[in-house]
Amino acid sequence: MNQYWSPLVHNITPYTPGEQPKLDNLIKLNTNENPYPPSPKVLEALRGEIADSLRLYPDPNADRVKAVLAAMHALTPQHIFAGNGSDEVLAFIFQALLKHDRPVLFPDVTYSFYPVYCRLYEIKYQAVPVTAGLDINIDGYQCQNGGIIFPNPNAPTGLPVSRADIERLLARNTESVVVLDEAYVDFGAESSVPLVQKYPNLVVVQTLSKAYSLAGLRVGFAIGHPELMEALERVKNSFNSYPLSRFAITGATAALEDRDYFEKTRQQVIRTRDTLGLRLAEMGFSVLPSKANFIFARHPYHNARDLAERLRKRSVIVRHFSLPKIEQYLRITVGTDRQCAALLSALTEILAPPSLS
Amino acid sequence: MNQYWSPLVHNITPYTPGEQPKLDNLIKLNTNENPYPPSPKVLEALRGEIADSLRLYPDPNADRVKAVLAAMHALTPQHIFAGNGSDEVLAFIFQALLKHDRPVLFPDVTYSFYPVYCRLYEIKYQAVPVTAGLDINIDGYQCQNGGIIFPNPNAPTGLPVSRADIERLLARNTESVVVLDEAYVDFGAESSVPLVQKYPNLVVVQTLSKAYSLAGLRVGFAIGHPELMEALERVKNSFNSYPLSRFAITGATAALEDRDYFEKTRQQVIRTRDTLGLRLAEMGFSVLPSKANFIFARHPYHNARDLAERLRKRSVIVRHFSLPKIEQYLRITVGTDRQCAALLSALTEILAPPSLS
Repeated sequence: MNQYWSPLVHNITPYTPGEQPKLDNLIKLNTNENPYPPSPKVLEALRGEIADSLRLYPDPNADRVKAVLAAMHALTPQHIFAGNGSDEVLAFIFQALLKHDRPVLFPDVTYSFYPVYCRLYEIKYQAVPVTAGLDINIDGYQCQNGGIIFPNPNAPTGLPVSRADIERLLARNTESVVVLDEAYVDFGAESSVPLVQKYPNLVVVQTLSKAYSLAGLRVGFAIGHPELMEALERVKNSFNSYPLSRFAITGATAALEDRDYFEKTRQQVIRTRDTLGLRLAEMGFSVLPSKANFIFARHPYHNARDLAERLRKRSVIVRHFSLPKIEQYLRITVGTDRQCAALLSALTEILAPPSLS
Repeated sequence: MNQYWSPLVHNITPYTPGEQPKLDNLIKLNTNENPYPPSPKVLEALRGEIADSLRLYPDPNADRVKAVLAAMHALTPQHIFAGNGSDEVLAFIFQALLKHDRPVLFPDVTYSFYPVYCRLYEIKYQAVPVTAGLDINIDGYQCQNGGIIFPNPNAPTGLPVSRADIERLLARNTESVVVLDEAYVDFGAESSVPLVQKYPNLVVVQTLSKAYSLAGLRVGFAIGHPELMEALERVKNSFNSYPLSRFAITGATAALEDRDYFEKTRQQVIRTRDTLGLRLAEMGFSVLPSKANFIFARHPYHNARDLAERLRKRSVIVRHFSLPKIEQYLRITVGTDRQCAALLSALTEILAPPSLS
């Protein structure tokens, strides 16, 4: 509390990201990073940016990123907006498209940054309950609203919504913007990008932090009708004309272009996820059928927070949320096969019944 | 105009940055970039980030950047806030520290992003007239206010305010935050960082885009009382937890550490600026005594917009602002000696009197 703060500052509760430990010997399965490195072609392209040209401002419009995405989806560059990570893109969306008299709707179990944005921009919101099985309940979004947003697949459950259900929602909800946060879509859910041409109120947000192994570079983007993208450009250009560095623009372009590498690593993550899910189920966990690069699971006989602490003592970090409905779950990032084996081995030790001697 | 836009979007007028031309053969003296490359040590450090670790999120707190700045100024890391370019830092400052019932004060001739931030965050502002000589009039800031902000040296004039005048202002203005935007301070003005320990309402903003030759990397920072920095952290962590990429953190740290290179290049820019100013004066220009890496000058007999257009035809771009009080000025970035010679040569051609034959 400080007399100099804007009144708003007293009312905000910042988002708490997962721990970024500075120790190298931990098995880090807590922030959904990709266990595989970026494409060698990305590293090569980034090398080209280590040059005297760093003295010059980057392209304020990130045209190269927009061009490659537009070509990939048979859209125009005006359908694309690029930002400094998808969190920044989401922030601009909340401010530019979701601030209305009516409340924004999102699931009560979802990405915990959404209510934080609402407090930052003084936007009313209403949480729509997920089903007993933690699925997003599409029929719960029929009330009047100032916008709808959810991740697909949802975080931290990993549960997807089908494109048919998305279309059902869009057909009914024409008066406000529908934002699909597809941070994890590349690991097996159906993307709604093909619906952008049909629905002028649809915005799809994606990131290079997960499936493209570039969390350290900070690039995310939105795809939607050019008029919606214009709103984001206006806010961006009233905030920071150059959100993407030269490295971000070049690295993102190269990553999006290397489809083979992307395909290979995402398939490997999917395979490991599905094997890990089976093994956890064999150990007695209830495992949600994830379409993301993490698994959300609970054990009927073990407290989730205790499990997370005991894993940490064995140098494995996973994420636990002290939140209603999910406090007995662990969110476990899909690592390499070897990291997942280490996790399973640590869990085997932890779950072993006490000897009867 | 679009039914889906937040009402705010209709009312904002984004900042227009200087042109970033994609042609290589232009002499680019329009956006105040440093004509010298970044330190070789910066390039070397950046090379180390081209690695598999790009798959991991960066340190959300940019602790290394804070540590080097704290050590440099005998302050603590809690006195430092780091952002994705000083424009982002300024945006957070407007939202976190300058949004009050009373209007923010800034000069009527100044960085044209300030009124843009005010519209974005719906902050009232009042422009305080500069003097007839375009100097900031410190005595004009005595009214009740919600904050005071100006660049020192001012943009686009390059005119500095002395530390004694800053202290006079701070001594009188204790009820609101005073923000000094020192983007250009390294080219000869007096920094107010040494006043931070004395005044709990002072925030100094600096950037690596100018004197450190890193406009393409996107790093800026604020220095001030830890409680003021906490307000910025709260807003940042409600907007984007990871504004600085791995490249930004590493490049900034290396740049701040290499004091010798910094000293050498800034002195060279200062020398070239002062020579360029003399030459322009010899050609009949009225040249303001700049302490920045640009020169603000007008010619009594030549229209500024025409001059800018005729320079551009000769492949030299400078900046012209169609704004009251300064529409007859050109803002000319200090380039290398060779670039400045090319500018002078082009101006000589343009200004040559028509032959009397």
